[in-house]
Amino acid sequence: MAVSSARGMRDFLPRDKEHRDQVLGSIETTYHRHGFESIETPAMEDFDTLHSGLGGDNEKLSFHVHKRGLSTEDIQAASSPDDLSDLGLRFDLTVPLARFYATNHGALPTVFRSFHTGPVWRAERPQKGRYRQFVQADIDTLGEPSTLAEVEILLATADALDRLGVEGWNFRINDRRLLSEVLGAAGIDPADHPLAMIVIDKLDKIGVEGVLGELAERLAPGWSRPRIEAILGGSPEGFDADGIATMMGDTPTSHAVAHELVNWVSQVSTLLDAGVVVFDPTLVRGMGYYTSSIFEISHPELAGSLGGGGRYDEMISRFLGRDVPAVGMSLGFERLLEVIPPLEVESLDKVALTYDGEAPSPHLMPIKMHLVSTGHQVRLVPQSRNMRAVFERLALDGFSRVAEVSSETANAESLHWRDLE
Amino acid sequence: MAVSSARGMRDFLPRDKEHRDQVLGSIETTYHRHGFESIETPAMEDFDTLHSGLGGDNEKLSFHVHKRGLSTEDIQAASSPDDLSDLGLRFDLTVPLARFYATNHGALPTVFRSFHTGPVWRAERPQKGRYRQFVQADIDTLGEPSTLAEVEILLATADALDRLGVEGWNFRINDRRLLSEVLGAAGIDPADHPLAMIVIDKLDKIGVEGVLGELAERLAPGWSRPRIEAILGGSPEGFDADGIATMMGDTPTSHAVAHELVNWVSQVSTLLDAGVVVFDPTLVRGMGYYTSSIFEISHPELAGSLGGGGRYDEMISRFLGRDVPAVGMSLGFERLLEVIPPLEVESLDKVALTYDGEAPSPHLMPIKMHLVSTGHQVRLVPQSRNMRAVFERLALDGFSRVAEVSSETANAESLHWRDLE
Repeated sequence: MAVSSARGMRDFLPRDKEHRDQVLGSIETTYHRHGFESIETPAMEDFDTLHSGLGGDNEKLSFHVHKRGLSTEDIQAASSPDDLSDLGLRFDLTVPLARFYATNHGALPTVFRSFHTGPVWRAERPQKGRYRQFVQADIDTLGEPSTLAEVEILLATADALDRLGVEGWNFRINDRRLLSEVLGAAGIDPADHPLAMIVIDKLDKIGVEGVLGELAERLAPGWSRPRIEAILGGSPEGFDADGIATMMGDTPTSHAVAHELVNWVSQVSTLLDAGVVVFDPTLVRGMGYYTSSIFEISHPELAGSLGGGGRYDEMISRFLGRDVPAVGMSLGFERLLEVIPPLEVESLDKVALTYDGEAPSPHLMPIKMHLVSTGHQVRLVPQSRNMRAVFERLALDGFSRVAEVSSETANAESLHWRDLE
Repeated sequence: MAVSSARGMRDFLPRDKEHRDQVLGSIETTYHRHGFESIETPAMEDFDTLHSGLGGDNEKLSFHVHKRGLSTEDIQAASSPDDLSDLGLRFDLTVPLARFYATNHGALPTVFRSFHTGPVWRAERPQKGRYRQFVQADIDTLGEPSTLAEVEILLATADALDRLGVEGWNFRINDRRLLSEVLGAAGIDPADHPLAMIVIDKLDKIGVEGVLGELAERLAPGWSRPRIEAILGGSPEGFDADGIATMMGDTPTSHAVAHELVNWVSQVSTLLDAGVVVFDPTLVRGMGYYTSSIFEISHPELAGSLGGGGRYDEMISRFLGRDVPAVGMSLGFERLLEVIPPLEVESLDKVALTYDGEAPSPHLMPIKMHLVSTGHQVRLVPQSRNMRAVFERLALDGFSRVAEVSSETANAESLHWRDLE
């Protein structure tokens, strides 16, 4: 007898479901105020869309859906499992967004700001805090070439986190082009830059010596260890363009990019608390599609990030055939739930009515309907031997008052309310 | 190049998405007031759960998901496509609810009222108004043996439809036991009752003569044509127990059931407008799991129903091993969208700021942030040659005012607003 949810996927009971809906509602409201608009894409995309090479390692984790009407002959004739599938479940919201934009761009404004949320699915090994179905909440600005897009996305995200009451978080910022410059200046062959970035990305896990050791092992000799050691040591003081440029290769390009970076980041940081925005010379972000700015949200209580994103100006051309400037931020909704305090939300006055389960009073439903129509949330509870347990349950579920509807109770005015605590 | 959504599945652009969210939000709020609580189940269930025989024909329409890590050898060794799948996408919300209750009943109140909404997937041939991903909104009361459950569900649903401004709908009500009585009284063998019900269910499509003809063709002779003709002719006057019992077989059971039915229906109808609740002797409802009360919502503008449900006291035992009384109502969300008038919802004051796309003013973001923090929804729009088209687009999207932020605009107070229409 199957009595559990599918492996790695969760049921949500009312209290959890309500909390999740409230948090998502708060994020959505904030992003709407900042001009982002909600869209929805289907859970499934065509197999070729999902496997366009944009999903990195996540492509390998996608759930594939059988073609309809497969016969035993079909499966015998297939030369690989991929022959049997034409659809898959989305593993992120970025690939579907790029496909959505290619499909619908004619009906969208020139600069389109999207709020896109929903479940995604990955066939990962289930473990604590890691699920096979989980929610992402993405904002993206498509069609804005200037760094105004980065500024707007970070300010909207800061506002969303503040309104949720999240504390202690900060933005770590870098630019892929600066990483390329410093790797080039260190004498690492451009063909080895992706490999070097993967190793640098492990800094949190393996430390400075671990990164330097692994680079020594995997790269051809002749690269400058001090250049790399300098960036692994952390950010220069403050968010100073010349300091950053010097650390990140000290080339004409690194100076130009560092000035651009400091210029737009200062627009963000002047509107936020001091120290919230930090330059992180080792920030890599895993996905291959980022072209310049990259950012991540850190929180002191979390080993991983609360979210991240960057600019990916070349992705949409995969579907549309021409480049469209694009900047996105993906919030890790499940991780966010771990660090937000209880929300203060306005809720209806919750009251309960008890009744004789064997012979409910004919006045029960009219009284309930009256209370509903005057703005209450009403739960009916049959009387039982252990009313104390019933009252405890009601209090736990947030009900404030309870009254009995007997055959003598003529209307809502004659109810005798009892407070619950 | 794949630039469309998967076949039969839809993207929702902001205006549609907003409308869908508002309608669903209104339904959810109403059901919450009536004491129903939101739950969520995963999109996928184990293959055996989905194929437990409870889904009727919908089981054949389910999308199946590949087992992970299938090799070419695995598929060559498979004796049927089912061997390659251990998960599937849900095709309704009833089977997942029954599984959810079996999994979580220990943590739920004795009488549990569930509001359960989300997408479901069916591999139907796509056509106008029929999609492969669509939303259902179900309410169910589990653990309440009395007809109070029916009364509460119909009253809550009536309230939900009224608050959405839907007009002209009504409830058609019947009881499976009455159908069995009249088929028995007509001399139809109990083994043929399911077949006879399937034929009667086609009344809307094939008419009285069509039903009688098909019954004559498919049933062994000897059954009473007048008995069946009587129910195909429609309801007796009013909602009268003796009239219903006489029409539905005139047996002791039909009298007992008709009195019970009229008793609970009168509790509903006295709280609603006259004529909203109608007895329909030919209402069958397709699913095999209904045990007594069945109901459907009709709307004059729709050929199909707006929703339907009934009592299914024996379903949950499939997963839990013991019967749990259960009554449910499923709203056809996509059809509902076709018949509701535009909703009046409070929305934020939507304002737009235009700016020089080549050189945005440094005051742009501080001014935007000020407007956001004072309760506005703000969209930034780069200036272009055709500002008239820009203004038309903004008006279409519900924006009320627009102002330019130039390098001379020091703050939000010095904006020159222009009304949009």
